[in-house]
Parts: sequence; C-alpha cells; structure tokens
Amino acid sequence: MASSRKLSTPSDYAELLCRYDTWLFDCDGVIWSGDHATEGASKAIDFLRDHGKRVVFVTNNAARSRKMLKTKFDRLRIAASEDEIVSSSFAAAVYLKEVLKFPADRKVFVMGMEGVEAELDAVHIKRCGGTGPEDNKFLAANDYSSLAGEEAIDPSVGAVVCGFDMHMNYGKLCKAFKYLTRDGAQGPVLAGETGGGCHFILTNDDKVVPALGELWPGAGSLVTPLIASTKRNPIVIGKPHAPMLDTVKSLYNIDPTRTIFVGDNLYTDILFAREGRVDSLLVLTGVTKEEDCQTEGIWPTFIAPSISNIVAAESGPSIIADGTSTIHASL
Amino acid sequence: MASSRKLSTPSDYAELLCRYDTWLFDCDGVIWSGDHATEGASKAIDFLRDHGKRVVFVTNNAARSRKMLKTKFDRLRIAASEDEIVSSSFAAAVYLKEVLKFPADRKVFVMGMEGVEAELDAVHIKRCGGTGPEDNKFLAANDYSSLAGEEAIDPSVGAVVCGFDMHMNYGKLCKAFKYLTRDGAQGPVLAGETGGGCHFILTNDDKVVPALGELWPGAGSLVTPLIASTKRNPIVIGKPHAPMLDTVKSLYNIDPTRTIFVGDNLYTDILFAREGRVDSLLVLTGVTKEEDCQTEGIWPTFIAPSISNIVAAESGPSIIADGTSTIHASL
Repeated sequence: MASSRKLSTPSDYAELLCRYDTWLFDCDGVIWSGDHATEGASKAIDFLRDHGKRVVFVTNNAARSRKMLKTKFDRLRIAASEDEIVSSSFAAAVYLKEVLKFPADRKVFVMGMEGVEAELDAVHIKRCGGTGPEDNKFLAANDYSSLAGEEAIDPSVGAVVCGFDMHMNYGKLCKAFKYLTRDGAQGPVLAGETGGGCHFILTNDDKVVPALGELWPGAGSLVTPLIASTKRNPIVIGKPHAPMLDTVKSLYNIDPTRTIFVGDNLYTDILFAREGRVDSLLVLTGVTKEEDCQTEGIWPTFIAPSISNIVAAESGPSIIADGTSTIHASL
Repeated sequence: MASSRKLSTPSDYAELLCRYDTWLFDCDGVIWSGDHATEGASKAIDFLRDHGKRVVFVTNNAARSRKMLKTKFDRLRIAASEDEIVSSSFAAAVYLKEVLKFPADRKVFVMGMEGVEAELDAVHIKRCGGTGPEDNKFLAANDYSSLAGEEAIDPSVGAVVCGFDMHMNYGKLCKAFKYLTRDGAQGPVLAGETGGGCHFILTNDDKVVPALGELWPGAGSLVTPLIASTKRNPIVIGKPHAPMLDTVKSLYNIDPTRTIFVGDNLYTDILFAREGRVDSLLVLTGVTKEEDCQTEGIWPTFIAPSISNIVAAESGPSIIADGTSTIHASL
C-alpha cells in the first residue's frame, strides 16, 4: 500500500530542512486562508530564509498581479518580495513570451482582470479587452451590430488569454469567440501578419474559488462558454498543469531533486508536484484531511499538520550525516 | 443502406399533404433566415391552412417571448398567431408548471432575457433575476460582499431557469450557483418551504446561434459555467430534447402518426422528430446539404428543396386512395 511519511519529531523536520534547498509554497490553505494568515506561517517562512533556503510562492490566483499579491503578503505580515511570487497570470505571460515566442507586433485579447493585464505589460506584450471600458458594458438585447463585421475585431490579435473575470460579459465572449474561430485561427501566430493564428490560454482551471468563507465559480468555469462554442481547448497554465512548474523551474534555475512543493490540495498541489517530479509536503491547514490520501489514492512525499511545524527543526540534530538516506516516503 | 424519400413530383407533395394533419415547423433556416423570409414560405403556410392543416412553429429561440416572435412573423408577412408559436422559453414555463408542478409560492431565478420572463409571467410563476436592474450591473473587482451571506439570496427560489442571456454576468452566475448548491438543493421543491430544493432548467442547448450572417455563443454555451461549478446537469427543454415535443403534444393534443416535423438541422430537428416518433421533412434552405444525411447517418423521412415546394401539391392528384401505402422512407 502506498503511503506518505508523517512528520512528527524535531529530527524529522531537521532532516527535511537539510534535504531541500528550494521550498515552493501554495498560498491559500497553506500561508493563509482567505484574509487570515496561518498561525506561525510568518515565523516558518523567516526560519527557512534564516537557514539559507530559497522560498517561492506559487498561486493560481490570476485576478491579482504580483504587485497586488505582494500587498496581501504585507498586510498579513509575511515577508515576501515580488520576485518570489509566481501567479498563474505571471506564468501565462512568461509562457506566451518565452515558450510560444509571441511576436512583439501581435496583441493579446484579455478575458480577465488587472492581474493578467499587469503581467502582460511587464513582459511588454500588447493587449486589448480586459478591463477596457469599451469591453465592460452590456450590449443592447438582441443587438449584435457592434460585434459583426471585420472592423469590430482587431486584426493584430494573436492570442486570447482567459483568467478569472468578475466583469465577464457577452460582448467579450463574442469577441474572443471570433478570434478563436476565424479563418486560420488554429494556425501559427506569426510576426508581420494580421488575422489568422490565435493561441487560446487559460491561466488556471479552478472550477470554484474561495472567498468570504464560501465557494464561487472560478476561472475554470468562466472559460467553459468559449470551449463549448469554439470546440477548442485552451493551454492551461496553472497548477496542476505543467506550464506553471516549468515556469518556476526556468525562472529560478532550481534543482528538482533538492526542491519540495508544500500544498494543501491533493489534486492541484500534490499531483502537480508528482507530475513535475519534485517531492511534496501536504499540510492539513487547508482543504485536505489526512485520510483523504487513502480515499483519493494520492500520496504526498510527506505530511505535516501545518507549515508552522517546520520550526521544530531547530530542536533536531544540527548536522545530518546523510539526509537523503533516512527520510523518504515509501511510495 | 438507410435513405430518405426525395420529393419531386406534384404527386409526391399531394400525397404528403394528404398524409399529415399537423405540420410542425422549425423557424430559422425553414421559415426565415435571420431577418429574411424564405422565398415562398408565406404562400406555403397559407396553402397548408387553406387545406385545413394545423400549423405550429417550434423554435429554440428563448430570448424572445411568443408576443415578440409574433411581431417577427408580422414583419416578414407570414401569417401566424401567438397560439401557434412554441418557443423553448414558453415550453420551459409550461414544463415547470405542468410537469414539475412548481409550487405557486416558490420563485424562479432567471438567467435569461425578456422571453423567459414573459412566459413565466404568462403561467403565473413568480420570478427574480433576469433583466432586473439590480442583477444587470458589474460587481466591483474582487468584491463578493453583495453576494455573501444568507440575506443575499431569496429563500423562496426553487428553480434556476437559464436561457440565452446577452446580459449574463458574474453576479447572476454566483447567485444561481448558490441556489443550485445550497443544502438540500438537489431535493424536492415543496410549497410552503424556503431554501432547499432547486430545479435546474435550460431552455435550449444550442452551443452557437446565428445572427447577422455569423455565429455567436448560444444558450448551451452560456450555461456551462454553472454546470462546471455546480457539477449539476440541467433539464434541457428545447430541441432535440423530449420536453419540447412533449409540450407540443400536450398543448395541441395531436396524433403523432398524422404529424410531420419540418426542419433544416439533422440534429436539432430530424433526430428530435425521430426520438419523438413523428415523421420528418428535411428542407435544404438552412444548414444541411442533402449529402450530409449520408455523412452523419441521420435520415429524415422526406427531403425537399424548400417548404415553398409544398404548393406543388396543388397540381397533384386531388384524391389519394391510400396515402400511407405509396409514400414512406425506406428506413
């Protein structure tokens, strides 16, 4: 039977500390829950830094830019720099720029909020749609006149990037539909061309998102009208999909064998780590209970009650002869 | 090999005329295309009436009420009364009232337009959402305060009815999500109760709709965020699903063996007729070419170039000895 190593003694945590140089953290359910910091989270993060560890925060949140997320870290008094935050909107922008080599003269049509826009701006990709006033108003009932005809859409658009959008509306859906279905839309996106090729990118596939202690429709639900009407499937950037971890790896030049992913969700975090071939630590401060591993058949490398427990390493052995030989999951 | 009977001679049409008492017509692609009447359609409909036939127009259009659709018939100079029009919004209201026995003291939350609202009003079902001003504005970014808490939703709501909605927005999606997922939402909808049970109805499942010579996302696409986030599947009323034809049969007390469905779409019309055990006539004035029957493996009972050809019956034999013996498809 598969199982995970449950951490409990100071020695367990000391060995963990020794074994990994890079610590990747999911945020919601790990660092914070909604607008409240996890007890002891700030101290645990500081503790890792004090021991020379690299810390990176990896969140599917695409509504906020890294700058806006940094403000949240500050408000919850958890030390973090913008450079340590990888959101799915940031990863989407990097993916477009670095992996898809999106031409500088083409434009992205945004079905999303400030988070996506700010990250596209940061990598100098031109954009339209999004929070633009002309795309955030209701159309008159049964009136398609503003959408029909070639002049209604921008010929230079070469990608539709969808993220969470509290201002989603039919006009934006129609424009995105046209970009994704026009002649040649499935073809290559080339510099110096107009029309034709159009990438379809989704920041993250979360069907629901938590806020104010309840769940609400998420980006993975809001994109479905486009999937249904265009019969196209987007490239999904966020956890548990590979582009997010590929982005993290490329940005920080990390050694996967010395990296651990800390998360609270078996599917978006633990499977994500396993697919990306990095070890994982499940914490029980979020959506998963210990017995869920058995039920779901998904086993993290390690399990701990909370990230706050990491500081217990201070009481463990200060020198580990061979950290990798004594502590690993029986996967 | 399956095949359909291709109508060509006056005698063919005369036999058809003799064989069916009730003629059900799809509208778009048959009676009209967009805002243009099919040539000869008006004359063909008059011809059927002159020969004592019952004519019913069966459309998936849920955005417009029957009254609004009647205005379109008038504008295109095709004789029709409101009583002869069955739209999917009308059928949805009848289905809620007659089949689901929706309690008089419960309310419907509408994700749709005037068409759905007017038909619910016509059968005296109370409603909220829809075109109400408070549900047709954008929420502030990342602000769920107006949606959270029990007081944000109406405890008497016992059904969410989705149709085509050019004013779809995140606030309406969130409210519908809450009604469909609250405790007991999958249970019965009872009179004298509040909260709990909530039906999930979709007027029609058309993924795209035609307008101004182009296609656009349709009701079957706009409902998908709710299906993805709630993990519930709606009861679909419109063609090709059974509730629409059940409604037609119950309203007009027709004899299925003496009824024919005339449509231009193999899936929404011809399969619909077959499932409902009525014969079908495919006309080639809409989305289907004759060779598509072979490709798709869907065979109507009959094929004719246009409904305008029906008038050719005038030149055929005036008395048919046994209309059913000589004309039928080799299915």
